[in-house]
Amino acid sequence: MASIQPQQIYDVVVVGGGPAGLMASLCLTTYGFNILHIDERAHPTTAGRADGIQPRTIEVLRNIGGVSTAPVPGGPITGQSPIGGGGIAKKMIGQGVRVYQVAFWDPTPTEKLARTSRAPSCPEFIDVVDNYTLLLHQGLIEHAFLDEIEARRTVLPDAKPTPPSGIFRPYLLRDCRTLPGNASDALSGTHPVECVIEHADSKVKHTIRSRYLLGCDGAKSIVRRCIAGGEVGDGEWQGKITMQGEATDIIWGVLDARVKTNFPDIKYKCLIHSKSEGSIMIIPREANLVRFYVQLQTTDGGKVVSIARDKATQDICIARAKKIFEPFELEFGYVDWFSVYQIGQRIASQYTLDHRIILGGDATHTHSPQAGQGMNISMLDMYSLAWKLNLVMKGLGKPEVLLPSYEHERRGVAEELLKFDGAYSRLFSGRGPDASQLPGGVDAEKFIQMFKQNAFFTSGCGAIYSANELNALPDAALLKGPHARAFNPRGMKLVAGQRLPPGRVTRVVDGNNVRLQQEVKMNGAFRIHVFAGDLRATKGALDGFAAFLDSPASFFNRHRPSVGVTASIVDGPAALTSHPDSTRNVHRHNPFFTFLTVVGTHWYEWEINDLPAPLRLYRAQVYGDALFDRLVADAGTDAPLHRKFGIDLQKGALVVVRPDSYVGAVVDLSEDGWLGLNDYFAGFLKVPEQHVRARF
Amino acid sequence: MASIQPQQIYDVVVVGGGPAGLMASLCLTTYGFNILHIDERAHPTTAGRADGIQPRTIEVLRNIGGVSTAPVPGGPITGQSPIGGGGIAKKMIGQGVRVYQVAFWDPTPTEKLARTSRAPSCPEFIDVVDNYTLLLHQGLIEHAFLDEIEARRTVLPDAKPTPPSGIFRPYLLRDCRTLPGNASDALSGTHPVECVIEHADSKVKHTIRSRYLLGCDGAKSIVRRCIAGGEVGDGEWQGKITMQGEATDIIWGVLDARVKTNFPDIKYKCLIHSKSEGSIMIIPREANLVRFYVQLQTTDGGKVVSIARDKATQDICIARAKKIFEPFELEFGYVDWFSVYQIGQRIASQYTLDHRIILGGDATHTHSPQAGQGMNISMLDMYSLAWKLNLVMKGLGKPEVLLPSYEHERRGVAEELLKFDGAYSRLFSGRGPDASQLPGGVDAEKFIQMFKQNAFFTSGCGAIYSANELNALPDAALLKGPHARAFNPRGMKLVAGQRLPPGRVTRVVDGNNVRLQQEVKMNGAFRIHVFAGDLRATKGALDGFAAFLDSPASFFNRHRPSVGVTASIVDGPAALTSHPDSTRNVHRHNPFFTFLTVVGTHWYEWEINDLPAPLRLYRAQVYGDALFDRLVADAGTDAPLHRKFGIDLQKGALVVVRPDSYVGAVVDLSEDGWLGLNDYFAGFLKVPEQHVRARF
Repeated sequence: MASIQPQQIYDVVVVGGGPAGLMASLCLTTYGFNILHIDERAHPTTAGRADGIQPRTIEVLRNIGGVSTAPVPGGPITGQSPIGGGGIAKKMIGQGVRVYQVAFWDPTPTEKLARTSRAPSCPEFIDVVDNYTLLLHQGLIEHAFLDEIEARRTVLPDAKPTPPSGIFRPYLLRDCRTLPGNASDALSGTHPVECVIEHADSKVKHTIRSRYLLGCDGAKSIVRRCIAGGEVGDGEWQGKITMQGEATDIIWGVLDARVKTNFPDIKYKCLIHSKSEGSIMIIPREANLVRFYVQLQTTDGGKVVSIARDKATQDICIARAKKIFEPFELEFGYVDWFSVYQIGQRIASQYTLDHRIILGGDATHTHSPQAGQGMNISMLDMYSLAWKLNLVMKGLGKPEVLLPSYEHERRGVAEELLKFDGAYSRLFSGRGPDASQLPGGVDAEKFIQMFKQNAFFTSGCGAIYSANELNALPDAALLKGPHARAFNPRGMKLVAGQRLPPGRVTRVVDGNNVRLQQEVKMNGAFRIHVFAGDLRATKGALDGFAAFLDSPASFFNRHRPSVGVTASIVDGPAALTSHPDSTRNVHRHNPFFTFLTVVGTHWYEWEINDLPAPLRLYRAQVYGDALFDRLVADAGTDAPLHRKFGIDLQKGALVVVRPDSYVGAVVDLSEDGWLGLNDYFAGFLKVPEQHVRARF
Repeated sequence: MASIQPQQIYDVVVVGGGPAGLMASLCLTTYGFNILHIDERAHPTTAGRADGIQPRTIEVLRNIGGVSTAPVPGGPITGQSPIGGGGIAKKMIGQGVRVYQVAFWDPTPTEKLARTSRAPSCPEFIDVVDNYTLLLHQGLIEHAFLDEIEARRTVLPDAKPTPPSGIFRPYLLRDCRTLPGNASDALSGTHPVECVIEHADSKVKHTIRSRYLLGCDGAKSIVRRCIAGGEVGDGEWQGKITMQGEATDIIWGVLDARVKTNFPDIKYKCLIHSKSEGSIMIIPREANLVRFYVQLQTTDGGKVVSIARDKATQDICIARAKKIFEPFELEFGYVDWFSVYQIGQRIASQYTLDHRIILGGDATHTHSPQAGQGMNISMLDMYSLAWKLNLVMKGLGKPEVLLPSYEHERRGVAEELLKFDGAYSRLFSGRGPDASQLPGGVDAEKFIQMFKQNAFFTSGCGAIYSANELNALPDAALLKGPHARAFNPRGMKLVAGQRLPPGRVTRVVDGNNVRLQQEVKMNGAFRIHVFAGDLRATKGALDGFAAFLDSPASFFNRHRPSVGVTASIVDGPAALTSHPDSTRNVHRHNPFFTFLTVVGTHWYEWEINDLPAPLRLYRAQVYGDALFDRLVADAGTDAPLHRKFGIDLQKGALVVVRPDSYVGAVVDLSEDGWLGLNDYFAGFLKVPEQHVRARF
């Protein structure tokens, strides 16, 4: 078989086949785009590197779902989504191990090393389904992505051919730039990005045009160097984009190995401080491996000094580990991987120069690995960017609002991570602000306190976005508008800029107990949650909202893509069921919006047909709220989710959840509320020309 | 590739490739045996047939688990089980749909058809994790089994080759018999069963010898006819084994189809009675299919009569369905499968004549399909037989006790099913005892009441075994023995002859939250649960039990298989961890027993090393009991599982769970208790010669 060659034109070029690049490719493939994905490595990761998936990332992976491979008797079913279930998340969960608990080991007055504290890795107050860290090596993670991307490409119409791995490798990026507008260049309006890639072995070069290019090529990003314009060699630190922050002289070794030990907590995440030999973090891993992060320091004339990076060998690392573990036995067997890193925190001064070539992941932020955050934040960078690109590329999103919001939101999270990581990694290495005074160099109590305080952030659930056009918080410009009073009703616990927490409801169409959060898989659509409260009280408001939705002035009708444009390959709108209503009714589906109606009145007491037309047409997304939730145990089965979310049963509420499952806006179920939503969507969505002409 | 031919000698021949035969093959493969599995059909089921998996069956499938396919860096790991996770169950759950709720539709004084009641398919009082019926067509179920069998065969040492499907097909059984002992027949002592099989196309015959032969070949079982000795044609009803019971004249059609309808509950299990047109049951299915069970009757001069079986066409079935659904619209699209059946209940007078050729599944009991029980009970027949055969074939079980217990236990369940099914199917068909007086023929209220009362049984959790050597109930002979008073302590809610209910605990070795019930996968071993209660009160008793276990007189040391014999390919004893204790200690593993220690004292307050040696060596099976359980909400996190199971925290208890996850015996954690367990095991396990000689 002749090897498959890259084409000349793509929607998006993704540089880098690590978790960030794979997330970009998976999301953009789901949205129906043709991707050129290149990586300079000849093969996916085989060992080591990142390994911790945090609760919020698992939630996201669950929401991405999986392509069903079950045969469909009688051929494909119209309107049936090919995506469902736990998919990529379940695959990873099946291969990894879980950390529910963290143990802290320190010297005590009586013992050389003793467990001084414990903590759940995800404390109870964090409302998340997968309340653990999932550990598996980066290669397994990459393969799960590659398999799922390949499965989705089979659903993609007009998919361009790729090599069996889905990624062109080994290919190096030689250059990339955004071309200025040029009347003689037919592509300059639509595909202004040009890049040159080169096969690492054959040295054959290809010049590619695309609409966007994403630099997911890691800390030493070539994309970043190309656009920043720095010199080769120092390009990472110079030019139009600079990496801000600093490195320390603290050197750590990292090792994946099988061990024999009588240390009782070898299958826990442990943070171990010895009296004078430095610190270790261990993390249990799949296949009986243990990951060791070992501080490489030694004592020079009573003063603690780091071991030089070039002298930090695997043997030294193992010797240090045994020393720190004393008095426990620790015997090393098979070693799967070894590496050395230097603690430091750096962040790119800008994530993009022109919103055409866009950086993310390690290309924009680097930090120490101990908090298990890097891969998670990197993947979620691309997850966050992809749905915005989707709206923009399909002509519905305002690029001038949506694209800058990527950096605004993700840089905020990265900055918070760096702040936390800087303090945490120094404190763990015995270099905290007050640490120098302590004999062992480490303030154990302070460190444990810091660990516990940051659990919300490290779980990923604490990645909170601030006010902008997409997050209707009190500071947002939108909330100075005419319908401001309808936003963020009193008592409401759902907050724009934060993820929608989980909740179990009964899906009325089939009586199944389901997780509301996971009902709509990532499909590029905004999820309009109609919390209908007590139907007796809210009937009038529901009818009003329904009438508004079907009016030409509603966001639902104003912001429509061109005919034939779908939001994603997952399109299989809940509206198009086998119920005859769906063809009799004039309601025309808009793939960028979907409606989920949650009713507080017990679902035995009403029928889907009692709901007004636009809502009842999404038959598969109508829910009863009567399943016990321990977090609101007092509610029993009487609308527990309304109560957990702080929704007044007499009033109801409208909650917009963005395609990335972040809450975007929360308004009253009232005319002011839905007009407010109209303003909200008008802030970042276009009113395409043809609709304006056709309808008014 | 030349087609693979059967060998001449196997451990077990399994006749029939439906769910019962597949369960037999999967279990016996797991126990390490070589199976000849034949089926007369050329391919697995492609459509229709059975489709409902009940909660208890899902629990069993979860316990069977799946072979991990994740690559193991650095090669295989000693003592690591290849089986884990949800495996075969997760695969089926991912492909099927769930029924949580049942709706009852009947004529009312004002409406032709109205929903008159609802019921959960598995009410809250049934303590089961998967509280729904899982629906998917039999072909998907068969393929899940075939894939898992194939995966396990790769782990099996000396596996004999099979065709890619794992089953030799199409092969017909031509004869089978148990040969009398014969000194000139070298195999007669070990492999007394002879069968002749014939390839359906080539007509090539093979004569096979085996230790056992299992007849899982359905209602018209050829195995049954061979051993019963009846005439061809009437062999099913004559000879040494007779089918007892009777058929009715009630004819039903069954149809898998896609429909368009405004009937609101099309995705529920519905039991629909029309005023005078008969009844329908619908069940939602994967891929938007709906299963229809349609009563085929018509009115003849005001009298309701069944449509003759040979006149019951698909078109008539569809016409009846539309009529019964009135006034709702019902339009049929793609039809995947159609069949007709006659309601009747029959049970074999004996399941075996000599405990060498053994019948199970539909070969021993037939009934109507509406209760969704047949496939479940058939699979569980073989699941129940397999572990007993395992003990017997490995020389540890007493065949004269274990083999008859198969029929004793499973026939009891089948009889209960037939009793229920007879009443239920007749009542549903309008032929209940009081039904004739009613205008519509159906007593809706009585029917609904009956449905709800039988939910415990139909969930599969109510399949209860009575006293025998394996179930230490008050009526068992064992309970007339010297240690009788230690059995079934006051307040204990675990009952011998019933499944162990679920409960969540914290696995201390890694702090994971796990389901105790699923911790030990089906591996042929007895699971000795040590409920240790409050360690301060039970320490002495625990030490006593530990000392007893390591004494030569304990069941653990008396009932050992020959050297090198394992209980299953899942052997990967929790005792053999990477902890150095495991090699330093003299405790010699016995693969037919495993120990799970559950401690009521909060697990933050003690260490695994505080437990006495035999128990702490099963490091991966030591648990803390501090996870909230809604069923004992009052307990909070203070030993909720002890409280749910009715275990006195001051006394603890020993609970033997059989390899099929049924409770076998419950005793005090006291000397009387463990001596009682010694008597319990002596009732059905041998003391192999060499051990007696070696040790006493």
